[in-house]
Formats: sequence, structure tokens, C-alpha cells
Amino acid sequence: MVEQVPDGSAPLVEKIFRDFAQRIETRELAPGARLPSVRQLSAQLGVSVFTVVNAYDRLVATGRVNSRRGAGFFVASHQPEQLLPSRRGDRELPDSALELFTQAVNHDLYKMAPGSGYLPTKWGEDAIAPATWAKVARRPESMRASPPQGMSALRDQLAIRCRQNGIDTKGDDIVTTYGGAHAFELICTSVLCPGDVVFVEDPGFFLLPVQIQQHGMQIVGVPRLADGPDVDRLEELAAKHRPRAFFTQTLLHNPVGGSTSATKCHRILSLAERFDFLVVEDDVYGEFAENRTARLAQMDSFHRVVYVGSFSKVLAPGIRVGFAILPASLKAAFVRKKILSVIGTSSLVELVVAETLATGQLRHHVDALRERIGKARSQAIRALEGAGIEIADKNIEGFFLWGKMPDELDVGDLVRRAHAMGILLAHGGLFSPSGGCQSYLRFSAPSSIDPRLLEFLSDSIRRARTPALRLVNNAY
Amino acid sequence: MVEQVPDGSAPLVEKIFRDFAQRIETRELAPGARLPSVRQLSAQLGVSVFTVVNAYDRLVATGRVNSRRGAGFFVASHQPEQLLPSRRGDRELPDSALELFTQAVNHDLYKMAPGSGYLPTKWGEDAIAPATWAKVARRPESMRASPPQGMSALRDQLAIRCRQNGIDTKGDDIVTTYGGAHAFELICTSVLCPGDVVFVEDPGFFLLPVQIQQHGMQIVGVPRLADGPDVDRLEELAAKHRPRAFFTQTLLHNPVGGSTSATKCHRILSLAERFDFLVVEDDVYGEFAENRTARLAQMDSFHRVVYVGSFSKVLAPGIRVGFAILPASLKAAFVRKKILSVIGTSSLVELVVAETLATGQLRHHVDALRERIGKARSQAIRALEGAGIEIADKNIEGFFLWGKMPDELDVGDLVRRAHAMGILLAHGGLFSPSGGCQSYLRFSAPSSIDPRLLEFLSDSIRRARTPALRLVNNAY
Repeated sequence: MVEQVPDGSAPLVEKIFRDFAQRIETRELAPGARLPSVRQLSAQLGVSVFTVVNAYDRLVATGRVNSRRGAGFFVASHQPEQLLPSRRGDRELPDSALELFTQAVNHDLYKMAPGSGYLPTKWGEDAIAPATWAKVARRPESMRASPPQGMSALRDQLAIRCRQNGIDTKGDDIVTTYGGAHAFELICTSVLCPGDVVFVEDPGFFLLPVQIQQHGMQIVGVPRLADGPDVDRLEELAAKHRPRAFFTQTLLHNPVGGSTSATKCHRILSLAERFDFLVVEDDVYGEFAENRTARLAQMDSFHRVVYVGSFSKVLAPGIRVGFAILPASLKAAFVRKKILSVIGTSSLVELVVAETLATGQLRHHVDALRERIGKARSQAIRALEGAGIEIADKNIEGFFLWGKMPDELDVGDLVRRAHAMGILLAHGGLFSPSGGCQSYLRFSAPSSIDPRLLEFLSDSIRRARTPALRLVNNAY
Repeated sequence: MVEQVPDGSAPLVEKIFRDFAQRIETRELAPGARLPSVRQLSAQLGVSVFTVVNAYDRLVATGRVNSRRGAGFFVASHQPEQLLPSRRGDRELPDSALELFTQAVNHDLYKMAPGSGYLPTKWGEDAIAPATWAKVARRPESMRASPPQGMSALRDQLAIRCRQNGIDTKGDDIVTTYGGAHAFELICTSVLCPGDVVFVEDPGFFLLPVQIQQHGMQIVGVPRLADGPDVDRLEELAAKHRPRAFFTQTLLHNPVGGSTSATKCHRILSLAERFDFLVVEDDVYGEFAENRTARLAQMDSFHRVVYVGSFSKVLAPGIRVGFAILPASLKAAFVRKKILSVIGTSSLVELVVAETLATGQLRHHVDALRERIGKARSQAIRALEGAGIEIADKNIEGFFLWGKMPDELDVGDLVRRAHAMGILLAHGGLFSPSGGCQSYLRFSAPSSIDPRLLEFLSDSIRRARTPALRLVNNAY
């Protein structure tokens, strides 16, 4: 629907495309099912081979179908999500990863957002002094086009910060981006190839699998435990699938909360060596770590690790500054894709972030945030446990809590009812590329202590546990 | 080289990939040449079909080879450029589009940059009052994540500005981006499909063909004349190639300077209707138009036109704010790709741009710029003509001048010698996807009146016209 040239008579290509899209959507064609061969279908429909090829190309381009050359076309195991219209006032139910995201950034739709992935806006208000913006805007270079790798003032500051975390790097190794997801995008387009098998964590950051799959890569989930990925399973899966890359969040994992142990870090890198894959280390929450922690980039020194950082969580989501450090052989292609997709990043915004690093403003802000988060986490753990929710791992850092709901409770239904009441909940299923985690919710600690939320949750759990009351839930 | 997993033994895939990449680079395999079939090569080399397929996929992914399903693999007619290392102090010769761009944004490399695509930095210094940044940064929403379509305050202002230009739109129709090139990228990934034939202007914005080709689309150039595209040729080419889209710059064309006549606008839209293609209207210079002008978006009302605007030229290149308005059926997919590639745009920067629009600051700035540009243009035309350069079209607006050099002059050599002297020239050949325009240079008017530049140019022309002196040029 969205791919066609608007207006005019829908050509045959469009018809075939729509027909298959619908059959896939309704599961008449199940994930993994093989489509008829091009020649077979062209003969059957009496249309040209090119018409069929074009229709199949669109199915591939929209993520509905994978093409394995020599073998044919197969229904993709993860189907693309439909994007929810984002008009204000709408309040449709987020039942896919993209929808959850769209809802979460439409701030006015919810009274409460314990399912949001961001810290409360108020917590970021003093992150950057307004005067800093004016000061930096007075510098002529803030208005110039940025160099392809990003502003060197920022890259030099980032290198200092990385070295403080034990990561051996320098400004010239760093490439800035519009946040972490933009770095992942450039990795997908410059390092990975369509058809590559890519490992992600299960559960993990919910947009990542969708982002990788849209480029024609195949996703395999590696179970994520409290102390890092299940490395035995990683070994089995690597031997079986020979992945090109493994995306992993070492510190303060989203959604499970825990950090990967140093032992597991070592094991992951050994497996990467043995099975010849890249490790993409997503470190967007690492600044919030209080304990002495290890990072993969620190151990590997950029032989196999691509390191990704961002200021969306530690400064503010409205900033959009992130960065990547890649093995030397991959940098030029990454920069090339940066130029050819966005030309460059914002000189002014990068200079402002550099300023918050250089003056220590960022450090103070993060220290204060860390303390606030710690308090909120203790409070939220108590509150959610009091409501009857089991917190999967309490010995964690950061602001996410991974809550296991009682088995008797239909969590999908709970999310729907919450939504109708103006409460955004993040269903665990959205974080699992294999469709697991259905009885989990991800809570953002600072937004999970409102008495109305807790009452709603405890009430729902109580009803679910009392068979006679179960029907009452449905009447909500 | 850049695509491989670093380190470890180079696998067979890599070997085959490199071997073909080299044979293509050395033109042993010429553009258009057919590669051996997968089965043929796998038999010949004694490797598996999958190894060959993987190697071919990398050749396709890196833009070296096109795949036409059913027909085989063919050497692409436009080969990917190598990215120049961007270390300060380097001053290698820009002999490709990407290199020209990289050089142009490395400000310290050149004493003079008449080949730059930007206005002088000083001209943008008062575009936004520094206090505006501080004022906007005080608003909580400037630090929040932006909604997927971009900040509504900016979109509403953009809609007003568009309506003033006769374009019938509203804020909800608009999607913001990180500048014009980012909008093109999202069009490539959400609207177009690999294999599509896409028309661009010849000559035209030099990064665009590279950007489109990297996604597997095939480029065909439509000759650009002073009063717009050659519409007769457009008709012939459309009948022959059945393009999916035509990218065109209606107003103040880069590099030729002229604007498309209203009559030609009408004809382009009629051809788009007849041959069922989209028109992507690049309007990043339109604000500088003094005369009453027509835009395609104005005539079409978003049936077939995608309209792209940007503030990189009218405010400052360090800003990175642009936008697109698409036919309704294409909007959701475009927004989806925006989320899945960059998550969102910068709330703060968008609110600042909205502020410059709302307060009239932008209007005043553009009015002043327009006057300055007009004066610089007259001066530069006189100066360049005085040096012996023929300005292709003098009855133009904007700051680009398209200069025809005498036939006797080796323009490539001139560009090399200028480069060695610290002068950035933009060779016409870089703007022509067909490799034409070799005797042209694009001049930025405000940067083309330095006496040292003019002396260098007139001297080179004089020598070229005096056979006895021609050798002297080579001795420079």
C-alpha cells in the first residue's frame, strides 16, 4: 500500500504484491513458507517474469519476504509492523514495537508512562544550562557544516571519557551520529550485507530487530540472562548459524536491568574470534553504572567490537547525539554511509555536548541522576513487589525493572486495559524477537511509584488470582 | 576491503569479492559487462554456490555490480567512489563527488573555495540570534524526544511558509528530517525499490546519483538546460525506461543556476501522469528566488510530487533541519523509515528553526541574503567573464554560476593546479552522471571575486590559448 506510486490504475505488480502481503498478514502463508517460483507464478497468472520479480522485490523490500538466491523466496519469520498514525488525541493500543515507540513519544496521550524508555523530562531539565546554547551559538564553527566524522571538539572529549572508562581510543577513531539507533543503522548499511545472519539479545531493545531486518538481514535471538547473554547457547547458535555480528548491551541491559559479567565478556569475545563475527556493543546506559564494570570494547581494543554510545539517556532525548567507534578497517565505509544518508551531523549541538563534557557539567548531571535513579529503583522495587509483581533481578543498576506477572494474569489484556485508562505499559513480548516474555512488563522505575498505577496493578493481580473475580477484569 | 569482518583469515567469499572488485576497478571488466553465472563460477573455482552468491551480494551491496534477476549480474555503470581520508593537513585532490564534498567541508584545507556549495560562513552568523537558543532551551519540550513526524510547532510554521509559496499543505502533512539529503535517503528507502530506474538531472547535485545508486536503483540522467529539464528528452527516456521517479530541482538549479519555467513544470507533471512516475522536487534554494516562480508541488498538490526543503542554505549548514511533504499514501512508510534509521530529529533545533520562522527572523535574514547574493552575482559574472570564462546563463538567481572554460584548456589539470595552490574548484564533470560537462566549473559567486583567483584563472586561460605557452601550464 505504502510502496506504490500514488494514484493511477494499480498495475499488476501492485496487485500481486498486495495479494501476497495479505496472505502473509492473515497467515495463510506462514513464516518460513516458500513462495511459488517466479517462473511458476508468471506461467500461472499469465504475466511476465518481470512483473512477478518486481512484486517479489517489493515483498522483500518491505521485509515481508526473504530471498535466498538459488533457493527461492520465503515468508520472513518477523513481519514488518504497521505504523500507528500519530495524530494527537488518538490513543490506539500499541501492540507492536514500532507502535510502542510511537506512543511513548506522544507525550500527551498518557497520564502515566511506566512503560516509557526515557527518564522523566523534568530530570533532564538542568542537564544543559540554557546559557551554554547561546555561548556556543556565538562561535562561527557552530553554524558551519560539520566534518564527515563529526566535530573534532566533541570527538576529543568523547575519547577522554572513553579512556576514563578504560577504552583505548582517540578522537580520530570516533564517528558521531544522531544517537545510538543512527549508529546501528549505519552499521547495518556499511558493515552488514543483506542475507547476513545477525544475533540480537532475547529479550533486548525492541526496535533493533525491526531495524536490522528491514535491511534484509536475518535475526536470531540469543537468550539474555541477568548476568549477560547465555554464552553456551551463543556458542551453539554461532556454530549453527555463523553470524556476521552480535548486538549486545553489556551494561544496564534494557529490559532486564543486569550487566554482563567480565567472565562472560571474555567468553563472548573468544566466541567472536572463533566463529569470526563482529560484536556491536550498545552502551547507551553505561554512564549510569555505579559499580566497577567491564566493557567489551575495553577488552577487545577494536579488533572485533563496534562500540556505540549516546547522550539520549544521560542528557536528554531531544538532543540526538551519539557516536560509534569501529575497527579501523570499517571506519571509512561507515563515514561514507553517514555522508550519503544525512550529509553530516549538527555542528552546534555537537559543540554543546562537547561543552558539557569539557566543563564537567555532564559529569555532575550524571552523578545526580545516578543517585536519583538509585532511590527511585529501591522505591519502585518495593512498590511493585507490594503490588504482587516479581522483579526478575533486584541486584541491578539503571532505571529499568523487569517485572514477572503472575501466570494467571493475561498480560496482553492488562496492557489493553491500562492503555484505555491512560497508562502506558511496555509488554515484555515486544522485547522478545522469538515472541517469548509474554508474562513480563518492563517498568521505568521513576514512573512506577504512582499509587493509582500500583492500585491498578495489584487489583488486576488480585482478581486474576481469584477465579470468581476473573470475569470482572473483562468488564473493565 | 571495508566490508569484511576484520582480522582472521580472509575467507573465499572475500577473495572472490576482492578479485572482481579489482577487475572492475582496473576496467578489465567494463561497465555493463556480465559476470559469469553463479553456477558457472562455482564450478570453475570448485567452491559452493553460496560462496559465489555471497561474494556477488557484496559486489552488489557495495554498488559495483547490479543484479537483474533472471538475467544475471552486470558491472554497474557508475562505480562507487573511494572516500578520501579526512585528516586535517591532508590535501588530496578531489576527483570524485564524495571527495569534493569531503574537501568542501574541511574548511582549513583551502585558502579560497569558489567551488564550495555553501555561502560564506560569515553570511550565516546573524541568521539566528544566540539568545534564541537559550530561550528555546528553557522550554521542557526542547529536551523531550520529538514525535516521529517532527515537532508540530515547526511543521505548522513550515506549512504557513509553504502556503505563502502557493503550496497547499498543513502541518500534519509534513515530516521533518536532518536536511534535504536525509529526506532523499528516506525516499530511497521507503518509496523506491532496488532495481527501480530513477531519473536525475544531468548536470545536477553531485551527491544525489551516488546516494540513489547505493540502494540498488539505476540512474538515468535527463539533460538540464537553463530553463529546466529537456522535456522532450524526458519524454523519450520515460517511454524507454519507465522510471519510478524523477529528482529535479525546480528553482535556482545547482549547478546551472536557472529555474524551470512554469510551462516545463506543467509538461513534467503531464509526463509523470502519463508514464506513472513520481517527481521529487528538491527546493533547497527556492527561498533565494526573487522573481515570481512556480513550483511543481504548487501545481500538483501532492498527487505525484514529493517536495523537499531544507534550512542548510538559508540559515546555516551546521543546523541540519529539512523536511518532506509526500503524497498521503507514502507518508507512513517514510515516517517508519525515519524512526527505524534515526529514531527522531532534534526537538531543540527544530523549535529554534520554528522560532526563526514565527518571529520573522528568517524572513529578514533571507531578504538580506538575497540582496547580498544578487550583488555578489553581478560582481562575479563581470569578474569571471573578465578572466575569459563564459557564464552559461547570466539571467539567473541564486549564488551558483556555471562557467564554461575555453576548449583549449584542460580543466581537470586546472583543478589539480588550483588544488595544489589551496584553491578548491568544482569540476563540472562531477555534476554529470553521464561524465559530461568536462569543460565546466561551478562557481559560488561570493567566493569568486578574489583577485588572486581571477589572476590564476585568466593566466591559465591565456596560456592555454597561446600554444607556445601551453607547456608552461604543465610546469606549474
